[in-house]
Amino acid sequence: MPTLRLALCQVNPSVGDLTGNAGLVRAWTRRAAASGAQLVLFPEMMLTGYPVEDLVFRRSFVATSQAALGRLAADLAADGLGDLPVVVGYLDADGPPQVSADAEPGRGARNAAALLHRGEVVATYFKHHLPNYGVFDEDRYFVPGDMLTVVRLGGVNVALTICEDLWQAGGPFAAARRAGVGLVVNINGSPYELNKDDLRLPLVRRRAAEAGATIAYVNMIGGQDELVFEGDSMIVAADGTVLTRAPQFVTHLLVHDVDLPAAGDAGDDGEQLAEGLRVVRRTVDGIPPSPTGPAATGGLIEPVADEAEVWQALVLGLRDYVEKNRFPSVVLGLSGGIDSAVVAAIAVDALGGDRVVGVSLPSQHSSEHSRSDAADLAKRTGLDYRVEPIQPMVDTFLANMSLSGVAVENLQARVRGVILMALSNQEGHLVLTTGNKSELAVGYSTLYGDSVGGFNPIKDVWKTLVWRLAKWRNTEATRLGLTPPIPENSIGKPPSAELSPGQLDSDSLPDYDVLDPILIGYIDGDLGREGLIADGHDPAVVDKVLRLVDTAEYKRRQSAPGTKISMKAFGRDRRLPITNRWREDG
Amino acid sequence: MPTLRLALCQVNPSVGDLTGNAGLVRAWTRRAAASGAQLVLFPEMMLTGYPVEDLVFRRSFVATSQAALGRLAADLAADGLGDLPVVVGYLDADGPPQVSADAEPGRGARNAAALLHRGEVVATYFKHHLPNYGVFDEDRYFVPGDMLTVVRLGGVNVALTICEDLWQAGGPFAAARRAGVGLVVNINGSPYELNKDDLRLPLVRRRAAEAGATIAYVNMIGGQDELVFEGDSMIVAADGTVLTRAPQFVTHLLVHDVDLPAAGDAGDDGEQLAEGLRVVRRTVDGIPPSPTGPAATGGLIEPVADEAEVWQALVLGLRDYVEKNRFPSVVLGLSGGIDSAVVAAIAVDALGGDRVVGVSLPSQHSSEHSRSDAADLAKRTGLDYRVEPIQPMVDTFLANMSLSGVAVENLQARVRGVILMALSNQEGHLVLTTGNKSELAVGYSTLYGDSVGGFNPIKDVWKTLVWRLAKWRNTEATRLGLTPPIPENSIGKPPSAELSPGQLDSDSLPDYDVLDPILIGYIDGDLGREGLIADGHDPAVVDKVLRLVDTAEYKRRQSAPGTKISMKAFGRDRRLPITNRWREDG
Repeated sequence: MPTLRLALCQVNPSVGDLTGNAGLVRAWTRRAAASGAQLVLFPEMMLTGYPVEDLVFRRSFVATSQAALGRLAADLAADGLGDLPVVVGYLDADGPPQVSADAEPGRGARNAAALLHRGEVVATYFKHHLPNYGVFDEDRYFVPGDMLTVVRLGGVNVALTICEDLWQAGGPFAAARRAGVGLVVNINGSPYELNKDDLRLPLVRRRAAEAGATIAYVNMIGGQDELVFEGDSMIVAADGTVLTRAPQFVTHLLVHDVDLPAAGDAGDDGEQLAEGLRVVRRTVDGIPPSPTGPAATGGLIEPVADEAEVWQALVLGLRDYVEKNRFPSVVLGLSGGIDSAVVAAIAVDALGGDRVVGVSLPSQHSSEHSRSDAADLAKRTGLDYRVEPIQPMVDTFLANMSLSGVAVENLQARVRGVILMALSNQEGHLVLTTGNKSELAVGYSTLYGDSVGGFNPIKDVWKTLVWRLAKWRNTEATRLGLTPPIPENSIGKPPSAELSPGQLDSDSLPDYDVLDPILIGYIDGDLGREGLIADGHDPAVVDKVLRLVDTAEYKRRQSAPGTKISMKAFGRDRRLPITNRWREDG
Repeated sequence: MPTLRLALCQVNPSVGDLTGNAGLVRAWTRRAAASGAQLVLFPEMMLTGYPVEDLVFRRSFVATSQAALGRLAADLAADGLGDLPVVVGYLDADGPPQVSADAEPGRGARNAAALLHRGEVVATYFKHHLPNYGVFDEDRYFVPGDMLTVVRLGGVNVALTICEDLWQAGGPFAAARRAGVGLVVNINGSPYELNKDDLRLPLVRRRAAEAGATIAYVNMIGGQDELVFEGDSMIVAADGTVLTRAPQFVTHLLVHDVDLPAAGDAGDDGEQLAEGLRVVRRTVDGIPPSPTGPAATGGLIEPVADEAEVWQALVLGLRDYVEKNRFPSVVLGLSGGIDSAVVAAIAVDALGGDRVVGVSLPSQHSSEHSRSDAADLAKRTGLDYRVEPIQPMVDTFLANMSLSGVAVENLQARVRGVILMALSNQEGHLVLTTGNKSELAVGYSTLYGDSVGGFNPIKDVWKTLVWRLAKWRNTEATRLGLTPPIPENSIGKPPSAELSPGQLDSDSLPDYDVLDPILIGYIDGDLGREGLIADGHDPAVVDKVLRLVDTAEYKRRQSAPGTKISMKAFGRDRRLPITNRWREDG
């Protein structure tokens, strides 16, 4: 039984940075070679970054990807790494990409994988199953592949597959069994979702059984706009045994020796397999010899607890949004409340206190503790703290216009937005927004006021989870003998917008312990009114909440992007008409 | 040869208003019956409105549509209209809609058409070709149908098809020929695009030839968020003759007598036709008798010129956004420039002068003519005119913060945004945004400043087209002996943001005559740098423009929705990563 030393490169590419991404492939292949690897794997769309969305329709972009692949193969050989086979994801096309109706079939872009060896592209594979749900629109972008690419390499038959190929039964994994494959490579750009790791392992096991083969699953890490990729790369044997598993949310080189069945007689090239898939066979000779010395083992990392996982996702999502877009620093308003405190703590974890500006923006309705709690937070986290009272500007508006009620409440939030944007223009900071998912869902925010900003780390975090995250982060600091970043007073006090005298969230909204389960059922679960009532919720509260959610769609459309931790964050992936007369309560 | 009197109902449904939409079907069927119609046709998704986007995933919504269809059939019979066959679009599902990977095939939502007769749903058809490009995401929502529904009615074989079925070769139209069909009904929710009417007629003719049958094409009219539906319903004979054609952008009952071939012997029910389509045959007996008296003719309306077409689209898009969302009125800032003048004229045409508030918001940099031209516009259009000087508020911000340069320029635009939103909160107006597509494309606007607002009628209109529209609208008024709404001075003066002394657009941007063709090539045409240079554009200007467009993506994401007149309006349908390191100029 041959043994192959595999290197799974859990790296962080950037969308559109083809030169930088190719540089990552060269650097990590060098590291893999130094570890004695015989086959090196990189994630889906490694060369272009993922997802590239409508850049697919720009022919010059497709051509750049195709040229970069050829150059990478040559560069690896020039680096002295030519013997080491490297699998890398990229964007390919048969011809001009398909942009509209009446396009000829087969003339479209491909979500592709290539195997590079001795300066050449030895084999290519085109993704067969294209995801077209949730955040995925791959039917818009790609033509599905109809070949299973099998490479004979080190005496083993290795099949190439990409991401969604793993998530649907049948297709390449079933075909791999018929093609006598010993190892299925699955390269991924698989976005993080809360508890997705619990889903992923059983799925990999199911496909390993379907293929009767070992699966090498490699995923990218990093933030890309609203998505975060978590890694969680692994190798799983045909019998379901997890041989090795990488940590989440960090770059990682996972090197592991895997015993694999020797390839039998090669089947016919072009043979028809399952679901109309035709096999394409290639042979790679002259890979690096099996290393001597001790066997390599990548170890087994268990996924972490929910709060730790979410916190790491939010920190990574914010850090990459800031770094990849080259912002020097961030600025946010500090109200003394829990939401801005948690966002500030995430920002300091992501960027360091010296790159975070926190501004207290008190009005005549601000409580004394709104300032003292914000100052306490600043001291704990080391962020750059400032105070900008808003009353002079608010008073000038009020002296020049006749405003009352909600118009006056919103005016205060908007003056704060103007101040933060002025600081952004003057000093270059990215403005962070701090509204939680519960507020966004019911429209409890001021459009162009507290909704102002370029990125919102907690837009996909329910209010009750904001509290849990705050407590977890403080406990974790205490456990490590460090200062808890979030003032206990910010965690304990009743939530208030402080836009009118004595105002509390509970004046307008149900308690968050009541509100959040209804929102989760309605939004994440797509439950209707009857379903929510059947789950035991008070019909009057359900009706009130549903009305709030249904009429807040426009505000959500205008909200800042933020890291997704579920499939139903608000913004672009929640596609609902603004103009809609239908109401659950009739 | 039998003659059938067809009634094509070019109506304006609202998304989610199932009761109101069913009411429209009943009212227009009554009108059609009074005209002696023997078959009545309504648009795609008539009962739910179109597009319903992610409402498809809410089971209670699907159930509401299914129940409404049955009730409508019964109500039509109760209205005494039961004998008259009515074709109506609705949302159906085989089972719970498909929401994720691993969903069982065939258990999904359907974009459906039903034929109602004598209180019953006599036949149904499921859309076969699902569009998944541009503004369409139907692979996300629907399972494609695999049957061709043929109804024998008045001695004629009538096939049912839906929208995209017409836009792709093969499929239901080829199948209809094999099934011996004399009339193909095609019901539509086909959004307006500039010059789409020039595309539509040749397409209908091609399918008529493919099917060897007459085609009755019925489209909705009206605005739905960013989409406008234009109507342009028509009947085209198998030989390509246009028998009748309805006007664009207005509701219309098109009644026309059509000679159709008598149905031969019925083929077998369940016979396999083209592309895996199986025929389902139904027979409807007892439709209303052929009317006596003169033949009905719907007449032939020619599509109008480009400027007239765009103007009507923008007026209808704004009117329906305001009316369907139940706003009492709109407010906008009037700078004296061309963009706000054109938006004001559109708003007055859509709503009347008494529902439009125009606010002059002068600063110390505002020219004398910025006020006098705005006042002149108000007088010409009869809108509610006000003046709110911004300098006191701007001065208070400047006294309390240390700002300079662009931060001071943007501050003025943001104070204007705060004032307009305060008026909106205080008095209930929808705020209109007035940035044109050229400005949005290059990011020449202030985020949370002039970009503030709920709807932007000209977000998809290039600056050079804004001028053409202004001149056309004034000429049209003169032709009709009315007052031209737009001051000549607003049309003639050089564009300026007036945020610093003597500022002109041409300080920062190429002339719009140079800029717009580059933008159109890059954005609408997906041309790259080399392609634009090959088209004769100056390489230095191309590089400058491309850099501006590529870095303005985030501002565009935050822009208000507005009526689309092309496939590449900015906003939700332009799907580009914000974080993207790729540049055309390397």
